[in-house]
Amino acid sequence: MTPLFSAITGPTVVVDRRKASANIAAMRATADAANVRLRPHFKTHQSVTIGGWFGDPAETAIAVSSVGMAQRFAKAGWHDILLAIPLNPGALYDYRQLANQVRLGLTLEHEDGLATIAALQAPVDLYIELDAGYRRTGLSVSQAARIDALLHQAQALPNVRQLGLLLHAGNSYNSRGDDAIAAVHDQSLNALASLLSQLRFDRSQLRVSVGDTPTCSRMTSFRGADEIRPGNYVFYDLMQQRIGACDWSQIALALACPVIARYPERGEVVVHGGAVHFSKDYVLIDQQPIYGQVMQTSSDGWSEPLAGAQLIGLSQEHGKIRMPAAQIAQLQLGDVLMIVPAHSCLVMDASQGRCDILT
Amino acid sequence: MTPLFSAITGPTVVVDRRKASANIAAMRATADAANVRLRPHFKTHQSVTIGGWFGDPAETAIAVSSVGMAQRFAKAGWHDILLAIPLNPGALYDYRQLANQVRLGLTLEHEDGLATIAALQAPVDLYIELDAGYRRTGLSVSQAARIDALLHQAQALPNVRQLGLLLHAGNSYNSRGDDAIAAVHDQSLNALASLLSQLRFDRSQLRVSVGDTPTCSRMTSFRGADEIRPGNYVFYDLMQQRIGACDWSQIALALACPVIARYPERGEVVVHGGAVHFSKDYVLIDQQPIYGQVMQTSSDGWSEPLAGAQLIGLSQEHGKIRMPAAQIAQLQLGDVLMIVPAHSCLVMDASQGRCDILT
Repeated sequence: MTPLFSAITGPTVVVDRRKASANIAAMRATADAANVRLRPHFKTHQSVTIGGWFGDPAETAIAVSSVGMAQRFAKAGWHDILLAIPLNPGALYDYRQLANQVRLGLTLEHEDGLATIAALQAPVDLYIELDAGYRRTGLSVSQAARIDALLHQAQALPNVRQLGLLLHAGNSYNSRGDDAIAAVHDQSLNALASLLSQLRFDRSQLRVSVGDTPTCSRMTSFRGADEIRPGNYVFYDLMQQRIGACDWSQIALALACPVIARYPERGEVVVHGGAVHFSKDYVLIDQQPIYGQVMQTSSDGWSEPLAGAQLIGLSQEHGKIRMPAAQIAQLQLGDVLMIVPAHSCLVMDASQGRCDILT
Repeated sequence: MTPLFSAITGPTVVVDRRKASANIAAMRATADAANVRLRPHFKTHQSVTIGGWFGDPAETAIAVSSVGMAQRFAKAGWHDILLAIPLNPGALYDYRQLANQVRLGLTLEHEDGLATIAALQAPVDLYIELDAGYRRTGLSVSQAARIDALLHQAQALPNVRQLGLLLHAGNSYNSRGDDAIAAVHDQSLNALASLLSQLRFDRSQLRVSVGDTPTCSRMTSFRGADEIRPGNYVFYDLMQQRIGACDWSQIALALACPVIARYPERGEVVVHGGAVHFSKDYVLIDQQPIYGQVMQTSSDGWSEPLAGAQLIGLSQEHGKIRMPAAQIAQLQLGDVLMIVPAHSCLVMDASQGRCDILT
């Protein structure tokens, strides 16, 4: 075990700042080259400290996905915050408070939400959410007339400062490799272009925001968009590596988990580190759910995957790892394994943004 | 929407105290009738408030699964706390502090852990964990000679106050119905009896602790055991209902989630309530992962399942519900749906023990 982790007594999220900073810089360069604004989605880390790595809060427009996150980042100095989840009329009071503190963006996916905007008593940016095939939330891009009418209705509301269109091609997460990512990207942007061509609403009055980590990591053009909105890229994870959005060396987050049991006879090790730390998100490899990849430790963190060592089972606090017997033989009780999780956003949420930072 | 939930502005865990209290009383009666001690596992709720419903903290022996939980309940007045997860030598300092505060129980699954016990400088109860078929942690019950030797070694340590055997038949979670639960129960207790018959170690010097919610909910005899250790039964959940450990009326926890989008044309509703609130644990129904069951709301909480309304998808903050169009037509944006989750323990962990309590 490297001395770096000798003080770890329980499951601990570890973030490699150099890798995260390189990821932040790379996405910045992608946005600049594509001539789009970058609005990082802060739901991935939910950390004021890590948020500061993206630049001066006062000059960094961000996306979040809950009122609680918006409140936290508003309090910490961010001024331009988009709530990228359909608005909930029950949260009117919270929206009103936020809109008085920061430049707030809200997301609308139905005419019924306009009453909440009208009741705000404060200006907001308003994004109409579109669905170009992901089928989670948003108005189908095929409903051009309805979207056009909604934009005109929204424009008439005194509280609406800036109108926009918001798109999340979450179906990119089903892709494997650049060709598949490009196919989702093209399908999504073509649908957007088709919609825009049918709108009577003045395009120059609209801000168009798109983005998800796979397409933003691998594509270079975002035609039709003014802004990209990826989040996960700051850390990446096993899922993004499988998609082909990143390689192993870019993954900036792992969980340090103490070994609490070794079973060489069945090729398994158990760590303290369970569903409450990893979440139960997984990737399927050879038809088996894999919750994380065990990494080789190094003097400054972790390096390559440890061949054949994967997190194959989770209960509340226990994690079961499949591992070659030769590796198990080298492990002592209490040794720390570094495990790249399937989904880093859920890991950071579970840790409430708490992590050890390697610099 | 019932007025009860009109103040809810985001995903909120709701606990029905009457149902939870009835569950607590029923398990108490089961333990009394079977003449075993009941040591409830507090990992399910992690709440000092709810912990108080089990009786006077000073007189309630409990199990937990992390040092953090042990510290919280020790501070709040519980005196007899078993850490029911294999010990981690790296946590020696924490164990020593706890052992000086409360009657601490630790769990051992390998000879290598004895050095940590020897270094404690304070007395503990020590449980040797057995594996009777679940294959997560513990010494296989087939290793009678090794277990016998380990018990004698442990007994020789001055810090060991009480020795025990600890068994968790987590494989009961794969059962459906009483016959299947009984089969796991019998297999597990028969294996325990066989082991006990082979030990030279004095049985009267051992405390034998078993238990998991399915067997403790449905079985009436725990032969060979001195103590049962279920946890989930205080709330139950969709998984336990599917196993047959409880019926719908016993489930004491649901998530109140605001409706943020309705798609009658595809038979779906989206709520604010995602993987960070529900966890991604699921039950398979007709080969499909189901993360929760939508319930009918009532004047005092929720009642029966709403037919055909199930949580079928989760992203970080969004929950996708399949629902008959006739039901969707009655929903307004911001209405609150009550959803029984697949796994209540992970929901309470995600909420950090925060919940609204219906009394």
